Amino acid sequence: MPHEKSTRTRIVETALDEMSKGGLATLSIGHLAKACEMSKSGLFAHFGGQEALQVCVIEAAIEQFRQQVVEPARQQSGTLARIEALGTNWTGWLLRDPSRPCPILQAAFEAPALTPKAAELARQARRGWTDWVERLAKLAIHEGGFAATTDAKRFAFQFEAIGVGCQSWSVVQGRDEAGRLARASFTALIDSARA
Amino acid sequence: MPHEKSTRTRIVETALDEMSKGGLATLSIGHLAKACEMSKSGLFAHFGGQEALQVCVIEAAIEQFRQQVVEPARQQSGTLARIEALGTNWTGWLLRDPSRPCPILQAAFEAPALTPKAAELARQARRGWTDWVERLAKLAIHEGGFAATTDAKRFAFQFEAIGVGCQSWSVVQGRDEAGRLARASFTALIDSARA
Repeated sequence: MPHEKSTRTRIVETALDEMSKGGLATLSIGHLAKACEMSKSGLFAHFGGQEALQVCVIEAAIEQFRQQVVEPARQQSGTLARIEALGTNWTGWLLRDPSRPCPILQAAFEAPALTPKAAELARQARRGWTDWVERLAKLAIHEGGFAATTDAKRFAFQFEAIGVGCQSWSVVQGRDEAGRLARASFTALIDSARA
Repeated sequence: MPHEKSTRTRIVETALDEMSKGGLATLSIGHLAKACEMSKSGLFAHFGGQEALQVCVIEAAIEQFRQQVVEPARQQSGTLARIEALGTNWTGWLLRDPSRPCPILQAAFEAPALTPKAAELARQARRGWTDWVERLAKLAIHEGGFAATTDAKRFAFQFEAIGVGCQSWSVVQGRDEAGRLARASFTALIDSARA
């Protein structure tokens, strides 16, 4: 059903737009229906309720993240090149529009206000990301690219910190130079772990 | 009017409790009145509306932060000792209860969903904090405690990142060891800047 699919896609894209202005928890079906120029019942026919809507919006953001950040890094050959690409791609993703917070980070930070399935999905997406960075750091130690003394968990913590800090510096605080500072911080972190 | 003052304080403390469960933007006067076992009109008599309530809650959090994080650091003698105390005290504040996010960080991240004055207050509190760290780093360079080659802005960015990362690691993702990782990261950052 290509027509139905495109309506659904348009609703989710509008929801991601609206979410960037005021978060996902406060986005009501009624407000979204108005933004989509649809009736509430028409929107309900596509999502069935607040929880399904929140889950679909987060899933759509995860899919965009997969395409723009994860897959290009996976295509790099070598663990260090993958880790470097993750830092660069994540920075690009976080700063693609300085007025729009990353919807996955945003949803995870407002998780207590979301419906239970949406909250768990957002948290799980973030945990999966940090787990992956830690596994890559362990692999880099095993392969000899990172020094044997590297603390893989602390590496993952600091990697996470730079990304979340980039969002805080740019979108939340409205400061400039977030891109330069985040990239320099990722480079310094990776260099400090090198064998 | 000591009676009125204590009722107001009790309302704000209840609001901070409720905020930790579901954020500030979604905290309605009606919900809070129920949590305080008061009538909505009784609560309105103290705050007058959503914006005044949100502003009072953030102001109360800023005051707690000032007492627990800022003042003990100010009392240290020497710029480096102050910077070290800021990192240690901020970590302690962020992890004082792993189920409760820092209300200032939480409000800043959900600022687009808050009333305008509350959003600006939360952002301004965070900007003031980062400005202070940058000024201290510049002072440490000037005094010779930090190397002349230190990038004070990048120092402030990385300091900010560790704190926000600590919140993401602990409260948002639910991982352990956030305290050890944040403290080790602050120490490594300060050591990397030393003259």
